Amino acid sequence: MQAIVKEQRAPGLTVTTVPKPSAGPGEVLIRVRHAGVCGTDLHIADWDAWAQGRLKPPVVVGHEFAGEIVALGDGVTELTVGQLVTAEGHIVCGHCLQCRTGNGHICRNTRIIGVDRDGAFAEFIAMPATNVLALDGIPTEIGAIMDPMGNAFHAVLTAEIPGSTVFVAGCGPIGCFAVGIARAAGASRVIASDVNPKRLALAAKMGAHVAVNAAKEDVVRAVLGATGGEGADVVCEMSGVPAAVHQAFAAVRMGGRVQLLGLPTGAVPVDFANEIIFKGLLVYGVIGRKMYQTWHQMRRFLSAGLFDPRPVITHRFPLTRIDDALATIRAGDAGKVILEIA
Amino acid sequence: MQAIVKEQRAPGLTVTTVPKPSAGPGEVLIRVRHAGVCGTDLHIADWDAWAQGRLKPPVVVGHEFAGEIVALGDGVTELTVGQLVTAEGHIVCGHCLQCRTGNGHICRNTRIIGVDRDGAFAEFIAMPATNVLALDGIPTEIGAIMDPMGNAFHAVLTAEIPGSTVFVAGCGPIGCFAVGIARAAGASRVIASDVNPKRLALAAKMGAHVAVNAAKEDVVRAVLGATGGEGADVVCEMSGVPAAVHQAFAAVRMGGRVQLLGLPTGAVPVDFANEIIFKGLLVYGVIGRKMYQTWHQMRRFLSAGLFDPRPVITHRFPLTRIDDALATIRAGDAGKVILEIA
Amino acid sequence: MQAIVKEQRAPGLTVTTVPKPSAGPGEVLIRVRHAGVCGTDLHIADWDAWAQGRLKPPVVVGHEFAGEIVALGDGVTELTVGQLVTAEGHIVCGHCLQCRTGNGHICRNTRIIGVDRDGAFAEFIAMPATNVLALDGIPTEIGAIMDPMGNAFHAVLTAEIPGSTVFVAGCGPIGCFAVGIARAAGASRVIASDVNPKRLALAAKMGAHVAVNAAKEDVVRAVLGATGGEGADVVCEMSGVPAAVHQAFAAVRMGGRVQLLGLPTGAVPVDFANEIIFKGLLVYGVIGRKMYQTWHQMRRFLSAGLFDPRPVITHRFPLTRIDDALATIRAGDAGKVILEIA
Amino acid sequence: MQAIVKEQRAPGLTVTTVPKPSAGPGEVLIRVRHAGVCGTDLHIADWDAWAQGRLKPPVVVGHEFAGEIVALGDGVTELTVGQLVTAEGHIVCGHCLQCRTGNGHICRNTRIIGVDRDGAFAEFIAMPATNVLALDGIPTEIGAIMDPMGNAFHAVLTAEIPGSTVFVAGCGPIGCFAVGIARAAGASRVIASDVNPKRLALAAKMGAHVAVNAAKEDVVRAVLGATGGEGADVVCEMSGVPAAVHQAFAAVRMGGRVQLLGLPTGAVPVDFANEIIFKGLLVYGVIGRKMYQTWHQMRRFLSAGLFDPRPVITHRFPLTRIDDALATIRAGDAGKVILEIA
Repeated sequence: MQAIVKEQRAPGLTVTTVPKPSAGPGEVLIRVRHAGVCGTDLHIADWDAWAQGRLKPPVVVGHEFAGEIVALGDGVTELTVGQLVTAEGHIVCGHCLQCRTGNGHICRNTRIIGVDRDGAFAEFIAMPATNVLALDGIPTEIGAIMDPMGNAFHAVLTAEIPGSTVFVAGCGPIGCFAVGIARAAGASRVIASDVNPKRLALAAKMGAHVAVNAAKEDVVRAVLGATGGEGADVVCEMSGVPAAVHQAFAAVRMGGRVQLLGLPTGAVPVDFANEIIFKGLLVYGVIGRKMYQTWHQMRRFLSAGLFDPRPVITHRFPLTRIDDALATIRAGDAGKVILEIA
Repeated sequence: MQAIVKEQRAPGLTVTTVPKPSAGPGEVLIRVRHAGVCGTDLHIADWDAWAQGRLKPPVVVGHEFAGEIVALGDGVTELTVGQLVTAEGHIVCGHCLQCRTGNGHICRNTRIIGVDRDGAFAEFIAMPATNVLALDGIPTEIGAIMDPMGNAFHAVLTAEIPGSTVFVAGCGPIGCFAVGIARAAGASRVIASDVNPKRLALAAKMGAHVAVNAAKEDVVRAVLGATGGEGADVVCEMSGVPAAVHQAFAAVRMGGRVQLLGLPTGAVPVDFANEIIFKGLLVYGVIGRKMYQTWHQMRRFLSAGLFDPRPVITHRFPLTRIDDALATIRAGDAGKVILEIA
Repeated sequence: MQAIVKEQRAPGLTVTTVPKPSAGPGEVLIRVRHAGVCGTDLHIADWDAWAQGRLKPPVVVGHEFAGEIVALGDGVTELTVGQLVTAEGHIVCGHCLQCRTGNGHICRNTRIIGVDRDGAFAEFIAMPATNVLALDGIPTEIGAIMDPMGNAFHAVLTAEIPGSTVFVAGCGPIGCFAVGIARAAGASRVIASDVNPKRLALAAKMGAHVAVNAAKEDVVRAVLGATGGEGADVVCEMSGVPAAVHQAFAAVRMGGRVQLLGLPTGAVPVDFANEIIFKGLLVYGVIGRKMYQTWHQMRRFLSAGLFDPRPVITHRFPLTRIDDALATIRAGDAGKVILEIA
Repeated sequence: MQAIVKEQRAPGLTVTTVPKPSAGPGEVLIRVRHAGVCGTDLHIADWDAWAQGRLKPPVVVGHEFAGEIVALGDGVTELTVGQLVTAEGHIVCGHCLQCRTGNGHICRNTRIIGVDRDGAFAEFIAMPATNVLALDGIPTEIGAIMDPMGNAFHAVLTAEIPGSTVFVAGCGPIGCFAVGIARAAGASRVIASDVNPKRLALAAKMGAHVAVNAAKEDVVRAVLGATGGEGADVVCEMSGVPAAVHQAFAAVRMGGRVQLLGLPTGAVPVDFANEIIFKGLLVYGVIGRKMYQTWHQMRRFLSAGLFDPRPVITHRFPLTRIDDALATIRAGDAGKVILEIA
């Protein structure tokens, strides 16, 4: 089958032919229809320090996808051939304390598809049945981006949103999703910031009441102004930019909650006394998606039509044009980029 | 000033003239503009067993209102003359464990205006400043019904609503408010039931996806049908009708939450094992409004335009027509009935 | 192998010989050392209405046990032969919403060992590996009663205990465990009630500050007296006796929490307004043990020596004397009764 | 009356005579019996940058105390002359969102006694009645240190403690209190670290299972070793030392909770991705005491004898020897230092 492969311990990805996988015991084989391209795929293509330390080529890349079940392995009874599905890409051990108490998203034995084992930028992928989620009518184009959308759902819905003021720092795809989710969950005011006008326009399209250009405006002042001087009840830091992290702490109200999802490179100096302790903050590290609370909530929002992520999808490419897809992301003002595979 | 007074230990209310109150230390004097008429006022007018045991006539009745501050008592600094305000009608001690930990709504020393002291069906009312809440742009017509609306906010927002399926049993004014609040807070599906078609129509206007006529349909079956056979995540029992209480327990999903606000008369036989324990339910008794978490959330929803209670207001009367107002409520298919006082 | 079997659709249990089970895929075979006898076993022996509706004889009975792993089925990697283990007796589907969100204790597809499939009153039992929990140094005698102890942990630790006053209604084994757990978790005052002086003595041995004889004393008055007139912060209703259910609601403080575990037979008339709603209560139905949060906490308490359940074990019998074991429970003043099997 | 006063905008404190205060409306006058000396008092004596920016001399210093009510101001009805009491030293506005929702500890209008207005190192102090808490049998020596003990209660009891493993970084008085509180609340294992052997000995006396000398041992390794390699469920960072902050993040388990109370001077570089986000942590900034949830819990623990803070009190001085008291704290291995005033 055709697949995008990290073949060598060097920059670049290859579109090539690899053997079609089969469904082992407890697994299903899925024909991939749509896949999402993520910043992680960029790191792998670029062969950065993180990728060098983690990947063992050759490996089929890609971890966001949706498709159709075409075969069931032994012992799989709760799924059927022909079902349209997506999948949680973190394959967890199921035995550790975290897994056994509904916190699989922080299992220390996590293996990620497209990173630690073959992934989804291919015509077929074999997945453990426990990781597979029926789309129940959600289109595969949307199903293909439920992984990053799930990060946004995790970040937003672990805070208390109805009636709250929410500040989303960073309007990449996950930040834009967060804006729309906060609106759907009854936030009374949503403020979004980014340095890129196209991304700010996307955030506004997703429902941000106020879109602040961080390159030109005083972000903290804008958030305080939009919240009666109190600061936001909830801040979602989606950028990983050090300046935005400080803005997050400065723009949240006394006793508020900061959800940290963006990954700063290297260390950020923090004035714990003034930024966190004297304000009585709760700060939460958002990693992955809760298994499977987040997925359940996400399907509810999508099926009920409470939230439509499609405005965030700005580009579509065939599998063979992965380099164009990556270039689009690198350019910095794309929303979500997806591959149309079947 | 003109006021509606319970004068005798006997049925009936009197429109009469009483001395205008003044603002004592820590109090403000409010000129009442609008007031809401409540089932409690009906009990007082009818002089039922509860009223006989509690009221000490003469007392000015009425506990739902909004108006304009016209005078400040000694020591009041956080409010100003001319402000449009409403007020929490439960006057609590401020010293007990519940009051000191943010749970004033269950203070055992609560005194209610219009019941235990003079109330709001009058041209003026004196209120402790701590009970007064600025309307900040919310019209007094809406401010006048924030007390019962607050019961609905308390019932709905103490459950987890975003993405949840919600069943509201009973579509009186508080039930209809609950429907709209659940929609605004991101419920994925809202089912409402009542025996009265007019009330069901109001619930539908407030956003109920499904309105079930309990006199004609199998309510539990309808809720299960609307929730994929699972049952509702959250049930708000707003009717106090014994049959509806059982439907609440039967229609909630395993591990779901039942908010009990309607007050059944007398005892209801409950099969604890099958209705509550085997289902692993959480059941919550909703009394009053959280002081002042509920009020804060409510003002946020109203100011942000997330929720508009006005469709529920079906009748307006002048102060002198209190008997017509009560008759309208007795007839059983009114929404909210308000008095236009100034 | 030797086993205690429900052979006929009629009262009685039989000690007999049945084929030794083997470990299927994903299962382990356990040689049983100790087993706990439970009220459920009594219902099965007596062939009451519940048993008649649920069991399909012949079935090996018993669901509380601990023993040694003697064989591993295909695909089991996280356990080893020779390990001493106990097991959760509720075998759940793993696929439903409840199972996928850490709430397997309310899976609607639950099958219970010793009820719906062969159980633990036997020399050997085959169990799904996912249900098996390593004892990590906890003696098998204690491991054998971790199932009912887990009910008590679930009831107590889902409330907030440190510094709280706790009233435990009913001092059977689970009630006595609850007393000790509440003490270990920092309850400031524990009041226990029962009609049986022997059980009250056990509760006192487990740490109850006050033991109230419900046959002779006014229970509610005693709880109010022991809590400064406020009522208990947390009530665990462990008896299922209707009078005790009412005492639970009357003895809990305003805004307190009532954990319902005891199963009343038939319906209990409840005055919802006065018993639950006006008090602003949270009422929780306790079924089984949280999978596997409760087991994790329980092993922590036991391993750390925070809690010693052994005073509650009052009788020990060999497998062949099951009738004596059941008679001891029927007599009404036993603590926990266990079978010594290997 | 005699008092310790910050007289000049310069280093030093003066024992002198000042006018005796009187109880204004809503206040009570308290004869101080015992007072606690705190690091804050040291900053004031030393006239450091923080003190220079905040204090307006002359001001009577001291904020931790207990004593006897000797006079009631107008309108005070819930307290009586002769009562032994302590007081919350943060005087809050009562009107802001935080105050109105039970979060007065983060009121932005907080004024602190001994800092922003006259304090407790004096024979008498006037306090708002709302800040005063009856000791109900707790000795004034203990009452005098309930303010810092309350910080420890706030830090420990806002995490889930029963059955948890707890790491306390920093064994000053608040750290030592935290150790004892965690034990009383059912922690399964408590690990404490400090560089000072005397303080470690105090922590061990308060119940630490493991006391780690951070100057000689690898703290993170010790915590992992004491928690089966998992890391601690809860970490209380009480030192403000940058190295300890990093140890807190490294020694907490995946999905654990870090309570930050110690105040680092200046900025600490944090690797958000690895220290917080990938671990899925909750981080909480602990400031003051919850008004009045923390005080309520603390009185429960003390009255029930669950926790005895007295081993932490290592030095006692008369009012006139404040310089010796401060020198003792400066020396670095004192526990809690108190003044015996009446």
